Amino acid sequence: MAKKPGVLTPQADDFPRWYQDVLNKAELADNGPVRGTMVIRPYGYALWERIQSGVDERIKSAGAVNAYFPMFIPLSFLEKEAEHVEGFSPELAVVTHGGGKELEEPVVVRPTSETIINHYFAKWIQSYRDLPLLVNQWANVVRWELRPRMFLRTTEFLWQEGHTAHATQGDATAYARQILHDVYEDFMVNVMAVPVVAGRKPPSERFPGAINSLTCEGMMGDGKALQMGTSHELGQNFARMFGIVFTDEHGAQQHAWQTSWGVSTRLVGGLIMAHGDDRGLRIPPALAPVQAVVVLVRDEGGAAGEAARLADALRDTGIRAEVDARVDQSFGWRSTDWELKGVPVRVEVGPRDLAEGTVTIVRRDDGSKDAAPLADATARVGDALAAIQSALLDESRARLRARTADVATVADAAEAAQSGFARLPWALLTEVDGDGQSGEQRLAQDSVSVRCLLRPDGSVAETDDPAVDADVMAIVARAY
Amino acid sequence: MAKKPGVLTPQADDFPRWYQDVLNKAELADNGPVRGTMVIRPYGYALWERIQSGVDERIKSAGAVNAYFPMFIPLSFLEKEAEHVEGFSPELAVVTHGGGKELEEPVVVRPTSETIINHYFAKWIQSYRDLPLLVNQWANVVRWELRPRMFLRTTEFLWQEGHTAHATQGDATAYARQILHDVYEDFMVNVMAVPVVAGRKPPSERFPGAINSLTCEGMMGDGKALQMGTSHELGQNFARMFGIVFTDEHGAQQHAWQTSWGVSTRLVGGLIMAHGDDRGLRIPPALAPVQAVVVLVRDEGGAAGEAARLADALRDTGIRAEVDARVDQSFGWRSTDWELKGVPVRVEVGPRDLAEGTVTIVRRDDGSKDAAPLADATARVGDALAAIQSALLDESRARLRARTADVATVADAAEAAQSGFARLPWALLTEVDGDGQSGEQRLAQDSVSVRCLLRPDGSVAETDDPAVDADVMAIVARAY
Repeated sequence: MAKKPGVLTPQADDFPRWYQDVLNKAELADNGPVRGTMVIRPYGYALWERIQSGVDERIKSAGAVNAYFPMFIPLSFLEKEAEHVEGFSPELAVVTHGGGKELEEPVVVRPTSETIINHYFAKWIQSYRDLPLLVNQWANVVRWELRPRMFLRTTEFLWQEGHTAHATQGDATAYARQILHDVYEDFMVNVMAVPVVAGRKPPSERFPGAINSLTCEGMMGDGKALQMGTSHELGQNFARMFGIVFTDEHGAQQHAWQTSWGVSTRLVGGLIMAHGDDRGLRIPPALAPVQAVVVLVRDEGGAAGEAARLADALRDTGIRAEVDARVDQSFGWRSTDWELKGVPVRVEVGPRDLAEGTVTIVRRDDGSKDAAPLADATARVGDALAAIQSALLDESRARLRARTADVATVADAAEAAQSGFARLPWALLTEVDGDGQSGEQRLAQDSVSVRCLLRPDGSVAETDDPAVDADVMAIVARAY
Repeated sequence: MAKKPGVLTPQADDFPRWYQDVLNKAELADNGPVRGTMVIRPYGYALWERIQSGVDERIKSAGAVNAYFPMFIPLSFLEKEAEHVEGFSPELAVVTHGGGKELEEPVVVRPTSETIINHYFAKWIQSYRDLPLLVNQWANVVRWELRPRMFLRTTEFLWQEGHTAHATQGDATAYARQILHDVYEDFMVNVMAVPVVAGRKPPSERFPGAINSLTCEGMMGDGKALQMGTSHELGQNFARMFGIVFTDEHGAQQHAWQTSWGVSTRLVGGLIMAHGDDRGLRIPPALAPVQAVVVLVRDEGGAAGEAARLADALRDTGIRAEVDARVDQSFGWRSTDWELKGVPVRVEVGPRDLAEGTVTIVRRDDGSKDAAPLADATARVGDALAAIQSALLDESRARLRARTADVATVADAAEAAQSGFARLPWALLTEVDGDGQSGEQRLAQDSVSVRCLLRPDGSVAETDDPAVDADVMAIVARAY
């Protein structure tokens, strides 16, 4: 409790180190004992719980229901889809012993659940009446990580994975889009206050086994991209491998069309990197586990009673409020700690202000202070929370705009992408030069990748074939 | 959709088979592809989500916060506590390969998380100010099962596990009791409508590494016991092994006192077996994902509109209501299906009743039907739900009373426990006969075990030593 929050490495000096400092000092996560694993500490987990509840609500509104499938998958299941096993086999964790002896067939810990879920879909789906089948699960998955980074890439992570089956390709395409926009983009923009670019992945970045991958890409504080959520059209690939066949209205047998989609604990990392500053986290009010902390400055002049009453009044209006009455710790230390944790509003209640009939409302986003009459404090905190939610979104939008450069050559794109996003015609990146190297490969030399493909109006590209649509634009960036 | 719900094996003929029939026909679960694993289907998972939310709310009210620890544990962690590793090693799943190569040290998939969590508690706890530390996690765990039974014993299962550290033994004892009564017993009795016996485990049934295990035991429909939740006092065993040391108020170094406690997806099995009847599930309204289904009998005479309006009116009063407008399926089939799924109230809306200005309210618990004026329907459904919640609890209480026999000899206990619980002095079971066999061992020959120890007034026994308290009573039964 008495550990000094201390000073963070400034973002401008070393962004990755700033990120690590925040994780440690705000007590969000610790390294696990097995390489690449992570302990999510209570405050970090509280952020994840709020993410879960907002995403889960939207998934249910999109008509999907939750279920749970085993995490142990026979290796043979993965091997059914060639691209899929090729994509995942270097990352698998394999269980060879169980119940005190060697297993007859080793099993893998799920890296994702397309194979096991589709094995059951094949049993559950018989008729067009069984479609669409819209299932989601919240689960842990394992992908062995050689270069782990907490929340962003860990060997074990938590996520939701949706898996659906539809009667027609059109239905599957529409549902993958619905999840991308109505679940993921809506949550990221309106709750996390992160203005994502929603687009289509180029073939090189597609999910193994998918015919089309859609993505939401956010810009972090250092200008790099974070892939925050993906929604895939699987075509009939898994349906063919697992025999998901239904009888249509005319009595004919058809393979189902499928989607899969997910967001993970990586979103906690995105939240930190999108809004954090040199004082620590800045949590958007819509997401914050604690929206307002009422800080008792000193326990004199009835201040403790007023602080408790104010917190009750805030809670009565639906604000997630807490009292900090730890007056045995210095006020300065506590203020720094709440700033570090990114609580959107701090209300300082002290005997001196109270004597004037006021309390001080401090906004975490811009540090502004406002002396509010005690009688107005609840309303003023509510106003401040709404203002902070907009301000954080505006700020992120302004950054995305300012740091996205329109460029006309691959070389300019590689340079611009060192400090933000670059936008250029996708056709330039598919062209092959005299050395047989495509523009996409050229970017890779500078650690730049194509994040997604858009139409000129910013909507999701319908194709990645420049021969079909020469106007498709690419967003390129360095990425986490 | 058109599969016939069909007829269940009567409970009286074969209870285990009835249980299996319900799992299949109510679409609660399927066997997983790896031995002992289970797919929790959407309706089964909806029950688990409701259990999770009720238990989680009570855990938070008891002051604990959620976190997440890695599922991969170095084997060496388990080996630190001798009894603990001895208890769990036959059940471990071992990962030997990760990231495409053999691991230097194999890791186990957590069978429970005392070891890994206490490794971190040792880092986080320094001073008495850091105590109590009250942490919970919702997670999957693996214990290799040779005789799996869905929801009751599966190789992988879902649970919550709480882990706490306290400054004194008294604090730890009190907290283990608080979880037993205020979290587990309260949820089981008031939400699940299962009147559990809360008591102390005999030494033979203690958690490996604990100094005292407390339990909630429910009586199932066949008179057998189900251990529904446990709360353990760990003493200082894990604190010593992992070095959880704090500086007390006087500057002295002390080992922390600890507890751990959990409930799992087994509760779904308990719910099925405690209330189910020959027509299927009967879900207590407080737990039911769907409390009332408005069944459109035929789409004539404006019935569809009335059904939709009624469901909206029910939802407006906070009732979880759904409309069944699948009029292309027979009404009889649909009624049977809703009975199978145990939805507490069915409201039948048909043109004939509507012409009279009424709808029919059917209670799942006793099958009673009530013609209610349309204007009163919402209130009458609310009344029915309250009545069903009480009726199911009363019925389970009556069964527990009727099928608990007071007996005076071990032989009588063994016999009575074939069809229910038996209660007898604990001292009789600790006595050793001429063959060197204790009463407890004698019971084991008839597959009967000591479920828990109580004081004569029914409260939790303070000791399992008859020399300290000769009045302690034992509840014995066959158990799942």
